[in-house]
Amino acid sequence: MTTPIKRQQSDERLSKIVEYGNLVFIAGTVADNRGPSDSCKAQTEEVLKKIDGLLAAAGTNKSRLLSANVWISDIREKDQMDAAWKAWVDPNNKPARACQETGLATRDTRVEIMVVAAKP
Amino acid sequence: MTTPIKRQQSDERLSKIVEYGNLVFIAGTVADNRGPSDSCKAQTEEVLKKIDGLLAAAGTNKSRLLSANVWISDIREKDQMDAAWKAWVDPNNKPARACQETGLATRDTRVEIMVVAAKP
Amino acid sequence: MTTPIKRQQSDERLSKIVEYGNLVFIAGTVADNRGPSDSCKAQTEEVLKKIDGLLAAAGTNKSRLLSANVWISDIREKDQMDAAWKAWVDPNNKPARACQETGLATRDTRVEIMVVAAKP
Repeated sequence: MTTPIKRQQSDERLSKIVEYGNLVFIAGTVADNRGPSDSCKAQTEEVLKKIDGLLAAAGTNKSRLLSANVWISDIREKDQMDAAWKAWVDPNNKPARACQETGLATRDTRVEIMVVAAKP
Repeated sequence: MTTPIKRQQSDERLSKIVEYGNLVFIAGTVADNRGPSDSCKAQTEEVLKKIDGLLAAAGTNKSRLLSANVWISDIREKDQMDAAWKAWVDPNNKPARACQETGLATRDTRVEIMVVAAKP
Repeated sequence: MTTPIKRQQSDERLSKIVEYGNLVFIAGTVADNRGPSDSCKAQTEEVLKKIDGLLAAAGTNKSRLLSANVWISDIREKDQMDAAWKAWVDPNNKPARACQETGLATRDTRVEIMVVAAKP
């Protein structure tokens, strides 16, 4: 029998949440608040809060993260991203992670994060 | 019993198709036509056509996409990539997706796409 | 019953190894030796040796790789990365792979590799 794929919060390009069996794929997530005063740390905090909501909508949470990809627009701001990340990540359940400096969708986007998680 | 891994279209570096159980991993795919007149939109159209073929060779199709990573060489051309993407993606079955601006393997490569899908 | 997630070699940010069922997620891996004389080829060799160790700690090996993401700091050094990669990869069991040029965590890091594998 074909395992169904459940998609939530789809727009014209992508689904923010894709569930396949117990695997959950969350789309690359960026902050809505991206003004000059929204630092990389602040944007990361907003992104991680959004990811909490997306994981919850899939019936899981950050303690079930498997892997994370982080992209930041300026590697000199990696410490800011890491500060927000370390304050957020479940201390007993950290995912595999990688981080690179890349261009992002808009010039005021300082961080984008994409995660894969498992359902309980 | 060990679940076998099926690999297709391998060259000296990679396999274009890797099947593990019902999961299908497709390698980063670029266009063959990369001349000065091959726009980001045209290259994306060629890449997506190639991905259709690779998914078919794995016994699946774009309606079973789980996630996609898109890399483009010039973020100002993201609208071109998105136009080709939106014309292609199954309107009822959109994957999680992320997109960044990075350097690509050759200077005339404007887009690279890597996807994970499920078999029916 | 919830499938347990096994995490190994966790630091304050991430786990280098995450096992979920028979899937193994390895964190983005960089070389420790990153001096001026440590070429992209040498750094890639060190990274791949580290990945061998991480896969072994998860009870698997490079013949069970599903996918790989490679990031290098200078695309002109891709041939060096590929030379080390081709000497290492199991000739009968090559993963899906993608490679981009991005900024990396430190300015002396020339290559980062993140892989997904299956356990036997």
